[in-house]
Amino acid sequence: MPSPNPWPAGVTGIAYGGDYNPEQWSTQVQLEDIELMRQAKVNLLSVGIFSWSLLEPREGEYDFQWLDEVLDRLHAAGIRVALATATASPPAWLVRKHPEIRPVTVDGVPLEQGSRQSYAVSSPVFRAYALGLTRKVAERYRDHPALALWHVDNELGCHVPHDYSDSAATAFRQWLRERYGRVEALNAAWGTAFWSQRYDSFDEILPPRAAPTFVNPTQQLDFARFSSDALLVHYRALRDVLREVTPEIPTTTNFMMTSRTKWVDYFSWSDDMDVVANDHYTVASDPHPQIELAFSADLSRGVASGAPWMLMEHSTSAVNWQPRNRAKGEGEMLRNSLSHVARGADSVMFFQWRQSAAGAERFHSAMVPHAGPDSDVFRTTVELGRRVEALAPVRGSRVHADVALVFDYVSWWASESDGHPSQSLSYMEEALRWYGALWRRNITVDVVPPHADLEGYKVVLVPTLKLVSDDTADRIATAARGGASVLVTFFSGITDENEHVRLGGYPGAFRELLGVRSEEFWPLGEGERHLLDNGGTGEFWAEKTSLEGAEPVRTWAGGPLSGRPAVTRRPVGDGTAWYAGTRLDADSLDGVVGSLLQEAAVEPVLADLPEGVEAVRRVGADGARFVFLLNHTGDGTQVKIEGSELFGGGAIAEGVLALPPHEVRVVREPNI
Amino acid sequence: MPSPNPWPAGVTGIAYGGDYNPEQWSTQVQLEDIELMRQAKVNLLSVGIFSWSLLEPREGEYDFQWLDEVLDRLHAAGIRVALATATASPPAWLVRKHPEIRPVTVDGVPLEQGSRQSYAVSSPVFRAYALGLTRKVAERYRDHPALALWHVDNELGCHVPHDYSDSAATAFRQWLRERYGRVEALNAAWGTAFWSQRYDSFDEILPPRAAPTFVNPTQQLDFARFSSDALLVHYRALRDVLREVTPEIPTTTNFMMTSRTKWVDYFSWSDDMDVVANDHYTVASDPHPQIELAFSADLSRGVASGAPWMLMEHSTSAVNWQPRNRAKGEGEMLRNSLSHVARGADSVMFFQWRQSAAGAERFHSAMVPHAGPDSDVFRTTVELGRRVEALAPVRGSRVHADVALVFDYVSWWASESDGHPSQSLSYMEEALRWYGALWRRNITVDVVPPHADLEGYKVVLVPTLKLVSDDTADRIATAARGGASVLVTFFSGITDENEHVRLGGYPGAFRELLGVRSEEFWPLGEGERHLLDNGGTGEFWAEKTSLEGAEPVRTWAGGPLSGRPAVTRRPVGDGTAWYAGTRLDADSLDGVVGSLLQEAAVEPVLADLPEGVEAVRRVGADGARFVFLLNHTGDGTQVKIEGSELFGGGAIAEGVLALPPHEVRVVREPNI
Amino acid sequence: MPSPNPWPAGVTGIAYGGDYNPEQWSTQVQLEDIELMRQAKVNLLSVGIFSWSLLEPREGEYDFQWLDEVLDRLHAAGIRVALATATASPPAWLVRKHPEIRPVTVDGVPLEQGSRQSYAVSSPVFRAYALGLTRKVAERYRDHPALALWHVDNELGCHVPHDYSDSAATAFRQWLRERYGRVEALNAAWGTAFWSQRYDSFDEILPPRAAPTFVNPTQQLDFARFSSDALLVHYRALRDVLREVTPEIPTTTNFMMTSRTKWVDYFSWSDDMDVVANDHYTVASDPHPQIELAFSADLSRGVASGAPWMLMEHSTSAVNWQPRNRAKGEGEMLRNSLSHVARGADSVMFFQWRQSAAGAERFHSAMVPHAGPDSDVFRTTVELGRRVEALAPVRGSRVHADVALVFDYVSWWASESDGHPSQSLSYMEEALRWYGALWRRNITVDVVPPHADLEGYKVVLVPTLKLVSDDTADRIATAARGGASVLVTFFSGITDENEHVRLGGYPGAFRELLGVRSEEFWPLGEGERHLLDNGGTGEFWAEKTSLEGAEPVRTWAGGPLSGRPAVTRRPVGDGTAWYAGTRLDADSLDGVVGSLLQEAAVEPVLADLPEGVEAVRRVGADGARFVFLLNHTGDGTQVKIEGSELFGGGAIAEGVLALPPHEVRVVREPNI
Repeated sequence: MPSPNPWPAGVTGIAYGGDYNPEQWSTQVQLEDIELMRQAKVNLLSVGIFSWSLLEPREGEYDFQWLDEVLDRLHAAGIRVALATATASPPAWLVRKHPEIRPVTVDGVPLEQGSRQSYAVSSPVFRAYALGLTRKVAERYRDHPALALWHVDNELGCHVPHDYSDSAATAFRQWLRERYGRVEALNAAWGTAFWSQRYDSFDEILPPRAAPTFVNPTQQLDFARFSSDALLVHYRALRDVLREVTPEIPTTTNFMMTSRTKWVDYFSWSDDMDVVANDHYTVASDPHPQIELAFSADLSRGVASGAPWMLMEHSTSAVNWQPRNRAKGEGEMLRNSLSHVARGADSVMFFQWRQSAAGAERFHSAMVPHAGPDSDVFRTTVELGRRVEALAPVRGSRVHADVALVFDYVSWWASESDGHPSQSLSYMEEALRWYGALWRRNITVDVVPPHADLEGYKVVLVPTLKLVSDDTADRIATAARGGASVLVTFFSGITDENEHVRLGGYPGAFRELLGVRSEEFWPLGEGERHLLDNGGTGEFWAEKTSLEGAEPVRTWAGGPLSGRPAVTRRPVGDGTAWYAGTRLDADSLDGVVGSLLQEAAVEPVLADLPEGVEAVRRVGADGARFVFLLNHTGDGTQVKIEGSELFGGGAIAEGVLALPPHEVRVVREPNI
Repeated sequence: MPSPNPWPAGVTGIAYGGDYNPEQWSTQVQLEDIELMRQAKVNLLSVGIFSWSLLEPREGEYDFQWLDEVLDRLHAAGIRVALATATASPPAWLVRKHPEIRPVTVDGVPLEQGSRQSYAVSSPVFRAYALGLTRKVAERYRDHPALALWHVDNELGCHVPHDYSDSAATAFRQWLRERYGRVEALNAAWGTAFWSQRYDSFDEILPPRAAPTFVNPTQQLDFARFSSDALLVHYRALRDVLREVTPEIPTTTNFMMTSRTKWVDYFSWSDDMDVVANDHYTVASDPHPQIELAFSADLSRGVASGAPWMLMEHSTSAVNWQPRNRAKGEGEMLRNSLSHVARGADSVMFFQWRQSAAGAERFHSAMVPHAGPDSDVFRTTVELGRRVEALAPVRGSRVHADVALVFDYVSWWASESDGHPSQSLSYMEEALRWYGALWRRNITVDVVPPHADLEGYKVVLVPTLKLVSDDTADRIATAARGGASVLVTFFSGITDENEHVRLGGYPGAFRELLGVRSEEFWPLGEGERHLLDNGGTGEFWAEKTSLEGAEPVRTWAGGPLSGRPAVTRRPVGDGTAWYAGTRLDADSLDGVVGSLLQEAAVEPVLADLPEGVEAVRRVGADGARFVFLLNHTGDGTQVKIEGSELFGGGAIAEGVLALPPHEVRVVREPNI
Repeated sequence: MPSPNPWPAGVTGIAYGGDYNPEQWSTQVQLEDIELMRQAKVNLLSVGIFSWSLLEPREGEYDFQWLDEVLDRLHAAGIRVALATATASPPAWLVRKHPEIRPVTVDGVPLEQGSRQSYAVSSPVFRAYALGLTRKVAERYRDHPALALWHVDNELGCHVPHDYSDSAATAFRQWLRERYGRVEALNAAWGTAFWSQRYDSFDEILPPRAAPTFVNPTQQLDFARFSSDALLVHYRALRDVLREVTPEIPTTTNFMMTSRTKWVDYFSWSDDMDVVANDHYTVASDPHPQIELAFSADLSRGVASGAPWMLMEHSTSAVNWQPRNRAKGEGEMLRNSLSHVARGADSVMFFQWRQSAAGAERFHSAMVPHAGPDSDVFRTTVELGRRVEALAPVRGSRVHADVALVFDYVSWWASESDGHPSQSLSYMEEALRWYGALWRRNITVDVVPPHADLEGYKVVLVPTLKLVSDDTADRIATAARGGASVLVTFFSGITDENEHVRLGGYPGAFRELLGVRSEEFWPLGEGERHLLDNGGTGEFWAEKTSLEGAEPVRTWAGGPLSGRPAVTRRPVGDGTAWYAGTRLDADSLDGVVGSLLQEAAVEPVLADLPEGVEAVRRVGADGARFVFLLNHTGDGTQVKIEGSELFGGGAIAEGVLALPPHEVRVVREPNI
């Protein structure tokens, strides 16, 4: 089946809007909504995500009238609709009639209806009902003029990334049969000779349910792979119905590509998405939320293979699910939105249009807050709508980067499994430490999957890639030989795809490339920190490393490994291969990054940018160049740049743009 | 059925005694008990609370002989008995025969016999057995001359406030049918349009069992209401049997009105209690246990609608269920007991008479400790008996207060639910901060329910009353207009009885009264604290507030809301309405309290009281006035007061009473 | 059945080797293994521990060929084999066919196959299968010349010390019938009059499954006793099969006698063991792992009744199951191994020979690490083999001690139960504080059971022995009267075997001996610490103590008990009885230890030992005397000693032995 046009049909410029749940409100409020949406220049809304129990109040009885009216009203107002399959939460009648569709925890607790997403994604019964509803919805609205995009389910796997039900067990066994063919291949891959775990047939296998101690690590990893795939299989099935009924309408679902959501391998979904869409929420306790946001946006672009993507949800201000939900400060809502656009989003959408009065998310901010339109939040919503409209020329342009950061969900799962040298390893934290140093220098980064083509990148970062295939290791080595500066950090290259350790010395798959060999890991204790020869320190991790071709860059000057190398560098082919065998203090880490960028001749987006100013450039197919400038500080500043400002600033006088405190400007640079 | 006399039949003066479990001891020990009870002037004992398995060792076979002997022996010694229904813990044979009576956790784990209270209160099977035993006991002892009071079950809901069993599900649905009539009314109240939660019939509804994420908040709230009511329904059923058999004997059960017990709405039980009884235990880690004790006693009086109440349990020294169980220090046992009496208790009773040698509570202190009568604890038991006897004239007198603190269990549940702006909100902690400031100033406080008549109070405190009905909000506003100084603190008036947010700006129901409007909550982070204009600070909470009629009292002088009001005051009618929009530091809070008291002309119990001395006055129907003076310090001091001291001091010379370290004195003041 | 020779048949000198799991490796690797084992002088390997699923891949179908080859190959290399029953982890087919053999948690969660040890030890079905396999293995290899020792199952109870399944319930009831005979005896012992827990028949009793609150403490204790016994019963059954088939081959299983493994009463297993074997792993976060190791080794010797024992497992470097797994530092592997030998081990064995590439323990160190033979770890393995060989003369010699520390698993369970004065009591921590003070002074200690013969000990330490029988208390008193200095510490002698409190004053069973009486426990708060009269402090615990014959040694000089005794001493018969009623600061504790040793005339192993040097002496039946000297510091030092050094040093010149940093020396002293 051919893939349709990858963009919400009929939406011009950048899409602007959010989730819209009119079923929670009276007609009077819905009429006010239309008026306020016009003020805010909303042009796209996600509708019907949690409408199953209203659309099908009893099995086989449908009520579409209210939704007809909503769509007609929106169409009349010129607003287009990302219409949901409405399958995100099965209604009570379905869960009561078929309790076997409930997902089950690792301890065997079935999760009830009463919140949301109480379904086992592998349940054939659930899937039949979900497909049935999807077809009903698709057939009902196939010709509705407001229909712009299909929104499948919602945040697939958000609350139940792993289901241990009997349905899951059956599907897992089938998945294993397809992966391994013969059970002896599985036994070899899982290393079942260990702890008497040999299986005589696939029928003997279960999900990694609660057990006396550590479960087989490859069983865990395969179950994580299966669980991610099971969500994808469900997505595909729903999408196929939609494509069949409306071949011309694109389909997507909202991913959760953030530092906290770990269990879906979004890179493996890329080929199935007409357009990649992401939900992103900052974390109140994060001291640098703008860095995590930028990483998430760059990751979204990576999953979209560089194409423009949709920001499907973010928040105007506080969320309601963190321990203490901070409101967004001055200018923060605009900076958040526009940083996503700067990094490739062609939409700015929120959860949700109007803040709920009832239900579990009523303390989550929205475009129209509890306080109503007479509020700073709604005034900013209107101002943002004005700016989004002004960014229409940006649509379709792309972001270029000289630096690639190799990121792998499967290795993430493997690196934080149990029974490891240090249980406090955070894959994402390690990646963000290196990413953050580049962000502060305004070096644009592509976050790419392990199977990415690395050609053309001047610098390739490989943070803590514990599990790596021979093929990926080869491509990384090829990048170095081809001229790139490659940096690998500790606990990389340790295992193959089956989580078997690569023998002979660490870091296994990268040992030859890097020219080092470690005999033993040397995890440091809580608070343990040792001196390096530059006066800096390393913490958390060390290794008993010998040089086998590399030169030392940083050497331990204290601790049990004093005199051994901590950071190394090896010229290889036309490039270099660096190894960081510890967690460096911030200055030492930045020093390594500086050396890498210098030797690779990588330049920031603009020269002489003031500290605290984020800059990203998008370039159109026609060569149009747009630089986004975000001031994350409370002080006004100036940026040297030529061109014309899009938010009303017009032509920039004397190549100096004033950037007020907390503000964002977008400059269209002269074509080259 | 008419309510009987609200006091243990035949007990004169203040009741003194405790739980008595003679079945744990030999006859010889029981005979020694009688002798020691005489020494201690014990006049009332709770008997038979956990005797089911001895009274009915096999289904339908009863053994009352041992209990006959106990009651006869006590009667012979002139001691009266609060006789239990013995239903507090079903015997093993019952739980094994009917495992369906076991309570079930939110995760579906049934809770076994082996500790205590292993019953599902909504189980018809359990309730039939409990009613059967109650009738047997009542009929056996209806004419026993020692019978003074019925003690129903024990600490209802203590360990299993919420039961998620199928019995509970059935009863919950019935409760919902009665509350809502039609399921569409429930759908509206619960906001089931959110997250596809619409119910097509009551039969589809379950308790809020484990679910993938936040459960519907109104479902949670209604389940909490139902669970409290289910306990009350059980109480009523047992009580009705007792009233039928012995119409002249009063009935009660021991409440747990402390800062830690949250899940029973005791105010809703008031009308069903012949006399209100409370169990109170201080907490070792509490730096100010005497304040929490006083609050609990004032709350008990509030639940008793101002009438004298019973202190049914407290401890002579350490308990055994806290992490580190502190023994009571010098004079602490007497001060604890007499602070309860000062605040309206007409009994002083302990768990338990004799410290157990076996079982789960053998490390809980008692009137006769493991060490035996040759111990400071028993000597203090005897001294306390002497003092209780001397307080006979106090019986029936009442406490008067100019200050009301509005306290609501239902709002407590609502304010600490999930998905909130700040999950670390503690309703009780907020209430205790304001209560504590008044306690330190010796201002007596009535803790009253939201439906209380507020007329006559000069000051009304409304700490963090998140959920509030229109009616309650109206009565609070009426109090202000009528001349009271009303203080409302942050996160009040936010939702209605269905937990729907009141729209248009916070604090919702109180916005007009207070003359302020907040657009957004602004929860502060862990340790985040900002300056106020008086040099004090606010922490934990802030709001983006505008004045709409109020005057600023305290203004933020730092942080993201600098310049906005933090505390406000609005003259309204003959009174004032104050708003505290943050958690003030102790001095700033005390400053607000001082201003309130001054403008309302509220005076302490006595003038010029030394610091650390607690004073409370009880006044008899005949005008007799008794002032309790408790020295919480290790230094002797003097109190200016006229009258006659009841513990042997006699007439006070020159209007100055010496108050030794750690000691308590009670003064009968001259009639006015 | 007569007990066979208590030593691996055919192993000469000290045994050296480890767990060997060749089924995880190719034939090529196995051939390399043989070569490396020769280099390392390995002479004993544990084989087949987790081989069930390979030996019996389908029910009733056996495959022994691979194991035949392994054993033949080892035999050809002169290496002997501790052959496992292979029952440590049931294969998937067995758990799937008989899910009722799965162990069940206290909350009712069955623990699945997928890790290891997923069996309910009381399940008759499981036990029949395990016995069947054991007989098959025994019959197959009864005549194999490599067979030296039977290794039953593996670390029995490691992950599932308590199983709450229905099988366990049945076996528990049977165990109770045997213990109590009549249910009324159980009711008396359990104190079921408390909380209505009376049982009318044994059939009504269940394991202490999840309940609303604290479960009956004697039920808990008896379940712990039963659970330990259930493992022993299983051991005996397997052992009996092995003795029947091969009466001449000794049988053992690997215990886990460390500070962290609590739930098996190994002392009760002593009589059933042909040889006692222990697994020991240090803990990375322990600042003094060598002290805990020494205690564990002394405990192993105690369980072995003083006879030589086997160190069956320890690690060459890091383990993989702690939060941060520290690698062993310079010389640490050798010091660890040789400290065990110094304290009576006649074997040095590791988990495992070759570090796994797959499975849950692949990051656990081994004799041949991932890095291969070209590694410090393997080089140390070879060096250790050389030293072990040199220690052949030590075999069979014994350790003598003047000090006994009474240690009781059952009291450990009782002392850390719930509902106690302080829930943060750690029995092991209290024992290690006193043990550590003796270790630092190089005083050798026997760790002995409560039923031990104490005659001949000059000092007897009784740390926190909460539960004690009359008989044990008598024997401790007899030791004092006979001339020993006995030290009892707080919370000792409190309960009898049924966990009933001994009335009349604390410390119950020891009150008369010690000449003190405490009316009340006085647990101190977190961080609370009060002054003693020597300027030291006590924390955690205090008691309201009066002297009744004892003299004060330390008196409280602050806090609520100021002036009362904290440490006391009473001359009794020819000895003394000391009481420490608080947790002393380190210096005060060492002061008490010093006084004890001085009055009892106990001397260290050698005089004038440098700080940080550990010394232990083993003495052969022929009077041969071997002193082990371990330098735990990074500085070289000298030890005054006469004799001949066994690791190549030869005759010691001028009575001064040089002890390099981190090193170990063993000196054969001249016979006396």
